[in-house]
Amino acid sequence: MNPKIAAFLRAHEPATPCLVLDVDTVEHNYRRLLAAMPHARIYYAVKANPAAPILERLVGLGSSFDAASYEEVEACLAAGADPALISYGNTVKKERAIKAAFDHGVTMFAFDSEPELRKIARAAPGSRVYCRIFVGNDGAEWPLSKKFGCEVAMAKRLMVLAEELGLDAYGLSFHVGSQQTATSAYEAAIAKVAMLFTDLQAAGVKVRMVNLGGGYPVRYRQEVPGIDDFGAAIMGAMAEHFGNALPEMVIEPGRFIVGDAGVVESEVVLVSRKGEDDPVRWVYLDIGRFGGLAETEGEAIRYAFRTPHDGGAEGPVTIAGPTCDSVDTLYEKSNYRLPLALADGDRVQLLATGAYVTTYASQAFNGFKPLAEHYI
Amino acid sequence: MNPKIAAFLRAHEPATPCLVLDVDTVEHNYRRLLAAMPHARIYYAVKANPAAPILERLVGLGSSFDAASYEEVEACLAAGADPALISYGNTVKKERAIKAAFDHGVTMFAFDSEPELRKIARAAPGSRVYCRIFVGNDGAEWPLSKKFGCEVAMAKRLMVLAEELGLDAYGLSFHVGSQQTATSAYEAAIAKVAMLFTDLQAAGVKVRMVNLGGGYPVRYRQEVPGIDDFGAAIMGAMAEHFGNALPEMVIEPGRFIVGDAGVVESEVVLVSRKGEDDPVRWVYLDIGRFGGLAETEGEAIRYAFRTPHDGGAEGPVTIAGPTCDSVDTLYEKSNYRLPLALADGDRVQLLATGAYVTTYASQAFNGFKPLAEHYI
Repeated sequence: MNPKIAAFLRAHEPATPCLVLDVDTVEHNYRRLLAAMPHARIYYAVKANPAAPILERLVGLGSSFDAASYEEVEACLAAGADPALISYGNTVKKERAIKAAFDHGVTMFAFDSEPELRKIARAAPGSRVYCRIFVGNDGAEWPLSKKFGCEVAMAKRLMVLAEELGLDAYGLSFHVGSQQTATSAYEAAIAKVAMLFTDLQAAGVKVRMVNLGGGYPVRYRQEVPGIDDFGAAIMGAMAEHFGNALPEMVIEPGRFIVGDAGVVESEVVLVSRKGEDDPVRWVYLDIGRFGGLAETEGEAIRYAFRTPHDGGAEGPVTIAGPTCDSVDTLYEKSNYRLPLALADGDRVQLLATGAYVTTYASQAFNGFKPLAEHYI
Repeated sequence: MNPKIAAFLRAHEPATPCLVLDVDTVEHNYRRLLAAMPHARIYYAVKANPAAPILERLVGLGSSFDAASYEEVEACLAAGADPALISYGNTVKKERAIKAAFDHGVTMFAFDSEPELRKIARAAPGSRVYCRIFVGNDGAEWPLSKKFGCEVAMAKRLMVLAEELGLDAYGLSFHVGSQQTATSAYEAAIAKVAMLFTDLQAAGVKVRMVNLGGGYPVRYRQEVPGIDDFGAAIMGAMAEHFGNALPEMVIEPGRFIVGDAGVVESEVVLVSRKGEDDPVRWVYLDIGRFGGLAETEGEAIRYAFRTPHDGGAEGPVTIAGPTCDSVDTLYEKSNYRLPLALADGDRVQLLATGAYVTTYASQAFNGFKPLAEHYI
């Protein structure tokens, strides 16, 4: 575990559940990513963790920002971000939210449908827009289905329409899914985008940016390819398909920037068995799926645990949250094992929980308050 | 739609998303349930909706309360509830939460394991305890798996142990799953409980209460059996298995009391297609799975919709929430159809959304605030 976080937990024994996040690790990850993809401009995906100390550090580093809502635009501005460096990246926006962002100087917007494009043309005239297209999500542990993006033929028509509506038909985007562990997913997506890009240029559209989205993985229980592997695969594919005419490149990392910077500390509420000889113990924590660990749905993201008894004899466990809802079960099928000595009152740590935890937390399900947050 | 709620929405056009809940309907449902099961004592499941106006109305009606956490105990006390009428019904509790409840006069606690029983004995000496046992959840649209309850043999040993620990081995409980549409589920569970009950009495344990849990269904898109059918099935099974020696009966309704009392109003953010000839439109609302509609997970609870264009031509839709998370999709496989005239800016209503919505809402996922609440 991160020694700075470990020292904080020892010194303060903060009330649980809580997230402790090391902002220096955020900076370290930003610099690692910049080194791995020097041609790309980093738009931090604010939704991964919008805490002010993170945004402020990234502003200082010159980062740009990908906002999912007007509220996230406001958070970036409050942290000192230049509105020219904010992209409003949700393809689904209320028209008055677009206008509010535009009124604050935001001029870069995502879309994937004609009604959305027309909203942007009305509420944010002359802005740069980019169209999100479908690509495969194979290899992603948190895939993104068909909710976002459109088919290539539609994207082509809409980019032409964007210029007719007085917008700047700036670029194309895709997203290979979050916690994407296959570098080949980016290669396939780049090939698809490059064809459309060339088509659009041939049609006279002044497209000049490719937004590669996010998805770069964090190490949880299993090793994943390093960021340099992703950087090399992406730059190789870009060179192969665009040659010397490389477009502007945008990336939208969230999990990669903040995931391994944070640790959730939780208290064990109960360790029990369901029958006298049941080999599997149930371990109930004071944080669960509705307390912030939403990405354990379907056991998609499998966090690593630390306990005070690590190294001692272990046995199989089902791990659950503290609420009266059975859906609030974290891991039943992922072969977790925890020490036999684990008991109620023990404090355990969930590693690499800096991304997609705090904001997901229910405001009061079963009466439980959201986890506390400490940025150090 | 409830005319009082319809009038409120017309008169106030409240900011969306929001819940509007008619507290008179809560009272009506409480009285209906009391009439259907006059032998049972009603412990309202606070987790379904802990809003003060609901708790206060129920206090006035003489209801008891089933609390899932110490925070819910506090909410009941703040609403004027007598602590003697509060059951702390979560089988997973921190020992200091048990003590805090006991210090405020709560003396009725659920358990399903030996460590929990020992916690109660230490923190709430002499209290009434009841053991939750496993029963089948077939027929439930929101089943409860094995997270709660224990096997019958273990329950028997623990009830004997409860008396040895100086506790009052008060009763047995089960839960057939939420939105349970089969009256037979209760009949099978009662048969199982009755056998254990008789065993325990033969062993000298002074057990005298059966807690039938909740689960009574609300009408969403489909008709469900009426509460009188459940009352008749339950009383028939109780008479069959207990004869003239009926135990005290406790029920823990949540959804039944508040579900159809509430309506969520939402704004359509976008209606789009993914390809030029795609027959299915995507309808994006300003509330989704992380905005409170958590029970749409797996399309388990299928809410009914009202729109300003009802009666006009309809077509198939996928319905999704406003966040950048693809998991935030409500209905893709449940054959929803909505009017072809539906467009962004329209206000739509989700009926029977008074239960299990407000507290589930994420505090700030993608920057979106939890839905507003209006109790009328």
